[in-house]
Amino acid sequence: MNSDYGVPRELSEGTTVRVEFGDGTTTADYSSSHVISRAFPHTYGQPLAHFLRATAKVTDAHIISEHPVIRVGVVFSGRQSPGGHNVIWGLHNAIKTHNPTSVLLGFVGGFDLLGRTVDQIRTTEQVNATRAACIALKLDGLVIIGGVTSNSDAAQLAESFAETKCSTKVVGVPVTLYGDLKNQFVEMNVGFDTICRVNSQIISNICTDALSAEKYYYFVRLMSRKASHVALECALQSHPNLVILGEEVSLSKLTIFDITKQICDAVQARAEQDKYHGVVIIPEGLIESIPEVYALLQEIHGLQRQGVSVENISSQLSPWASALFEFLPPSIRKQLLLLPESDDSAQLSQIETEKLLAHLVEAEMNKRTKEGTYKGKKFNAICHFFGYQARGALPSKFDCDYAYVLGHICYHILAAGLNGYMATVTNLKQPANKWRCGAAPITAMMTVKQYIGATPIGKPALHPATIDLKGKAYQLFREKASSFLLDDIYRNPGPMQFEGPGADVKPFTLCVEDQDYMGRIKKLQEYLEKVKSIVKPGCSQEVLKAALSSMASVTEVLSVMSAPSFNGQIPL
Amino acid sequence: MNSDYGVPRELSEGTTVRVEFGDGTTTADYSSSHVISRAFPHTYGQPLAHFLRATAKVTDAHIISEHPVIRVGVVFSGRQSPGGHNVIWGLHNAIKTHNPTSVLLGFVGGFDLLGRTVDQIRTTEQVNATRAACIALKLDGLVIIGGVTSNSDAAQLAESFAETKCSTKVVGVPVTLYGDLKNQFVEMNVGFDTICRVNSQIISNICTDALSAEKYYYFVRLMSRKASHVALECALQSHPNLVILGEEVSLSKLTIFDITKQICDAVQARAEQDKYHGVVIIPEGLIESIPEVYALLQEIHGLQRQGVSVENISSQLSPWASALFEFLPPSIRKQLLLLPESDDSAQLSQIETEKLLAHLVEAEMNKRTKEGTYKGKKFNAICHFFGYQARGALPSKFDCDYAYVLGHICYHILAAGLNGYMATVTNLKQPANKWRCGAAPITAMMTVKQYIGATPIGKPALHPATIDLKGKAYQLFREKASSFLLDDIYRNPGPMQFEGPGADVKPFTLCVEDQDYMGRIKKLQEYLEKVKSIVKPGCSQEVLKAALSSMASVTEVLSVMSAPSFNGQIPL
Repeated sequence: MNSDYGVPRELSEGTTVRVEFGDGTTTADYSSSHVISRAFPHTYGQPLAHFLRATAKVTDAHIISEHPVIRVGVVFSGRQSPGGHNVIWGLHNAIKTHNPTSVLLGFVGGFDLLGRTVDQIRTTEQVNATRAACIALKLDGLVIIGGVTSNSDAAQLAESFAETKCSTKVVGVPVTLYGDLKNQFVEMNVGFDTICRVNSQIISNICTDALSAEKYYYFVRLMSRKASHVALECALQSHPNLVILGEEVSLSKLTIFDITKQICDAVQARAEQDKYHGVVIIPEGLIESIPEVYALLQEIHGLQRQGVSVENISSQLSPWASALFEFLPPSIRKQLLLLPESDDSAQLSQIETEKLLAHLVEAEMNKRTKEGTYKGKKFNAICHFFGYQARGALPSKFDCDYAYVLGHICYHILAAGLNGYMATVTNLKQPANKWRCGAAPITAMMTVKQYIGATPIGKPALHPATIDLKGKAYQLFREKASSFLLDDIYRNPGPMQFEGPGADVKPFTLCVEDQDYMGRIKKLQEYLEKVKSIVKPGCSQEVLKAALSSMASVTEVLSVMSAPSFNGQIPL
Repeated sequence: MNSDYGVPRELSEGTTVRVEFGDGTTTADYSSSHVISRAFPHTYGQPLAHFLRATAKVTDAHIISEHPVIRVGVVFSGRQSPGGHNVIWGLHNAIKTHNPTSVLLGFVGGFDLLGRTVDQIRTTEQVNATRAACIALKLDGLVIIGGVTSNSDAAQLAESFAETKCSTKVVGVPVTLYGDLKNQFVEMNVGFDTICRVNSQIISNICTDALSAEKYYYFVRLMSRKASHVALECALQSHPNLVILGEEVSLSKLTIFDITKQICDAVQARAEQDKYHGVVIIPEGLIESIPEVYALLQEIHGLQRQGVSVENISSQLSPWASALFEFLPPSIRKQLLLLPESDDSAQLSQIETEKLLAHLVEAEMNKRTKEGTYKGKKFNAICHFFGYQARGALPSKFDCDYAYVLGHICYHILAAGLNGYMATVTNLKQPANKWRCGAAPITAMMTVKQYIGATPIGKPALHPATIDLKGKAYQLFREKASSFLLDDIYRNPGPMQFEGPGADVKPFTLCVEDQDYMGRIKKLQEYLEKVKSIVKPGCSQEVLKAALSSMASVTEVLSVMSAPSFNGQIPL
């Protein structure tokens, strides 16, 4: 295999790279910025960095031409994700190409090459141990490969290292199969494409089977954590009959009975077309998106934090929470009582929401049959949980390329002496030779989650991005949803291909969105420069007047949009 | 796609085909042959047929040069299997190439193109309805695509049609994902390769996940019916830690406690190497291979045939069966009480043997921990059933080719006017242009299952072939089993490829066996001809003496080996 595979021209081995810095960064949630800047005094507000091929013409930018020996540590943090190893491959090649005496050290933790240990580097003890190890090993850089939680930890480590004058620079890499580390700077995560393709393959097989057997409803739960990105992408790839997105449930505040009713109505509508089979996709995070179940889980976790033992929890719940708890089947009750994960969410992979829903739907259909409102055949469900069978998959070509390039970028971030940055590749929906390589301060991706009124409290961190219900991918899904439901237009993308047709496909959710945020930031800078160059002292009164009036209006709109109360909708 | 794809030279479109007939056929179990010949007076003992490209030199063979219009019906019988549609494609192309006015009609039943209805064509009512339909539609041929049960039905139909002078010829095609329609004439079934490759892909992903997470034992049950062919092939492809083959359990008469103990000993041996993860493969037929469970199931099915209701069965079991029944967890009890399938086996896909074993192993490990004989970490199991997600897969390249060729052969069988034959392709482990195309009477593949002493009783039928524990594939597995168990030499064949490296792989179990039975039959005929041509009247006394003595010895050995009591071992 060509080790230079998929690397954009800018970074191909041996070329000299220049770093171009953008403006200092802020955060998407303007109102949290002061909280974040106070928490990260050494690493907040750093500029964006773009890595470009150095050309003779450009002289003002920072060209990295010296490549002293460097010592870099790399660690997988949290759950495994396909493609993680390819980051290491890219990083190793970049390091060795620029200086063969440089060293890459792997720390045990995460993924099969290095094994999996703890899910976090967060407590004072963990941070101090990490610092001590970095000093003892004389590391110039520490690369942390992981998702939302791991990269939050990376930012915290970077700040702590800067504060204590530890010279190790910390770099994060967005690798998580859930696809929920998404923001202005990060279009996609390594692993997501593979997970969606493996899951779509088997969901599609299940769809074909449903259509052949004509007697089962398959309820398929997908490993995806809180957000439903995996479910949305798989829906666009496979066209199953029904997908219950957690984000829709949250927005509409649907109760578990509302959801059951919706599924039953779908079963009934299909029965009227003489169809007694179907495929229903359920993201594992759905259970937490149901308001009353979420409230119940919060009560349970609160009691657990107070040290209440498992046997005593149910008796100490509030009356309404207790009523819901007692209504649930015993197996689900037991699963809800499991201790929460390191990010405080429930153990989503262990809660069999698909069985709960299949059970409730069956009961409701039997009730409708008794009442005579449903006259079709008996409802039969078969339940599946798809998670472990995708997580260990060989990475797709896209994930290999993306991960390899991110590994390269990590080296250049360290060579440029940057700390607290995440490696980024944008313009991903274009062919790899048009990808843009860069780095963004992790603090610029942070938000503060808990609010009192409009005042943010709580610790700044990266938070899982949920599906943008105004985004193009979701809109595309919505347009097709009723056809998916009734027409059985199942689509089988087949197994992931490494060569030939299909090898170069990319996630739908990546390809339909307008991305290239970094490119658009650059475009804005060009406009501003252009205005400056036109409106120079000596320009006509008319030009100055037009510029002032236009800019006044632009700044006013933007000020309103960035005010604390603004939540994405223009106030009317 | 090239419609001539994968067709051996002999049958490529437009070439004239000649049929070469071999000797009349017998059955592998010599002692049943008279029972079968009595049951199938019109279709037993027909000769093998070989289809070859007609060359100018050969004149004595039957060359099919006339291609009148024919009307053919095709039906999928029983469960769906990847590649079934490709048989129709091959059949349709062959029919239309030889006479564009010929007609192919599809009957509803099985698979998604035609939908699934009943699993059999067996009762007098079904046979008569089929005959009436064939006559009404003026069918020259009826092609039945399916597994062991469907092809037994095909043979019965053929005999019944011949007896009643119905002119429709019946042809069977070996398409079953279980890979259990295996005999002297049939090396492999359409669908098996795909199923094993899809299952191996996800088993391998599970193995990688186990090795990454280092904390779970995955218990994976595979859809495979009575035999363990799928499990054996997947084991050779993925190298999981442990595979419990039903055939081994049957042979060694292992009880459910023996199996539990074996798994626990494996867990303990791995814990001593500080390994607390693993992957255990369980064929769905295992449950019927455990002697005491099989006996229990027989009792339950017997009571069901007597019309005893589900609630009353447990009270009418014999004392020992009742004791076992009560010992089992309630969910398993419920599953054992399901009505048997059309082939009298239990509803294997519904019995969660993997959960039963995981439950028993956990209990035993806890017991060992309490007793102090096990000092390792707590045993954690996650259970999976892989079936539906493979059954609807796109067929592999091998299955496409194989199915397409079988479809072609069906046409030539009908053009040659043969009835009660199965289409066969041998030499499958060689590239497609070396495949040998033929047809064998289905009756020659039959056995009679129930014996009183050495006397066969019961109805002749095709029976699922079990794993040959003296075969090379099993031997290969056995040699590696202890390394699989302890060394975690997991192998990930990756997703099925349609182009590039890996696209042309074939099942291990196909490639390691010495096959080409038909080729060897031909070789034997050549030897016999050679002897005849040497020992002609006029040959020397010495030659005649040597021939007589040698042939006497050969016939004696073969007579002993074919005697009723002979069960595959030379009597000492």
